[in-house]
Amino acid sequence: MDINISQAVIRRLPRYYRYLGELKDEGVLRISSRELSELMHVTASQIRQDLNHFGGFGQQGYGYNVRNLYDEIGKILGLDKNHKLVVIGAGHLGQALSNYVNFERRGFHILGIFDKNPDLVGMKIRDVLVSPMEELESFIATNDIDIAVLTIPKTSAVDVAKTLVKSNIKAIWNFAHVDLAVPDDVIVENVHLSESLMRLSYNLRGK
Amino acid sequence: MDINISQAVIRRLPRYYRYLGELKDEGVLRISSRELSELMHVTASQIRQDLNHFGGFGQQGYGYNVRNLYDEIGKILGLDKNHKLVVIGAGHLGQALSNYVNFERRGFHILGIFDKNPDLVGMKIRDVLVSPMEELESFIATNDIDIAVLTIPKTSAVDVAKTLVKSNIKAIWNFAHVDLAVPDDVIVENVHLSESLMRLSYNLRGK
Repeated sequence: MDINISQAVIRRLPRYYRYLGELKDEGVLRISSRELSELMHVTASQIRQDLNHFGGFGQQGYGYNVRNLYDEIGKILGLDKNHKLVVIGAGHLGQALSNYVNFERRGFHILGIFDKNPDLVGMKIRDVLVSPMEELESFIATNDIDIAVLTIPKTSAVDVAKTLVKSNIKAIWNFAHVDLAVPDDVIVENVHLSESLMRLSYNLRGK
Repeated sequence: MDINISQAVIRRLPRYYRYLGELKDEGVLRISSRELSELMHVTASQIRQDLNHFGGFGQQGYGYNVRNLYDEIGKILGLDKNHKLVVIGAGHLGQALSNYVNFERRGFHILGIFDKNPDLVGMKIRDVLVSPMEELESFIATNDIDIAVLTIPKTSAVDVAKTLVKSNIKAIWNFAHVDLAVPDDVIVENVHLSESLMRLSYNLRGK
């Protein structure tokens, strides 16, 4: 397998994964790059090029085996492994993410939720207890947590990120509107909602 | 002003806007491309190239006037205008977005919230009433709504998007995990959270 896959291809893989998952659920066994192209509004040559990175999944005159391709892309994305998560911030966004069952179905298990607000501590979200921030470090160590989800304001996020780095967290899914300064070996995936809204606003100009 | 700005530059503008806003709030009057480069971890030549698109904001030996540049980028992003929004889906994510005061500060005013769940209808989120879905179309027409925020499951999102198109909505901020089929003149900005989580998962492989 070609392991030098460009970030552009990687960015497109989850979308392939979503469409293939839907086809699989509908009982579709195989699909040609032309059919997939019409469904996804991407050129067939783009699809062939992207999927060629992962070796001979497509066969001339047969097309792609939907389940195989779905499973292979899942493996490439690391979705065949289980991950242990904590959510930091039990406000609306933290609750929304904690309630989202699809994450769990894909191997992302939320084991703990943390908040500094004593009114939220002790609450349960889908059987997961909200604990005080003081317990975060020991919880990460004891439970071998890989991923921290940050749904707190940017003013607190910078300090909490320092604690996470000290606790040897592997990855941070960051919803705080700030760029976190972490060592290179800590993965940060940002979701900056207001930047998304600004892009929408830009595209609305003159309409 | 150069109006043929690439989408790559547009994608970077919100980040400039955020940093300049923070500098402005700290009382910084001017900044060189070198200083901005160190702050943002982007090369100074990238900054000069990006900001040159918008005409002579920078002056040799002086740098950029922070407030001017902030205001100009804000105008380019359309943030000097007010937008009227409805949020469709009053679940946790809809509540989180409705409660986010920063959107309002930037001219995005949420006028209505809609949900099909009768238990949520009648509830108020920051003084905005949650109304039943049946009232969505007439509300959009009466209140001249530009933007609909979709925080409902993908199964309902496809149908609701059809209603929105019929109501002449200009833009959809889509959190449902589905690609919406809308006419070309309707802007769709997607936030696919599970795709973001999959990218994180990909980058975690082997760690």
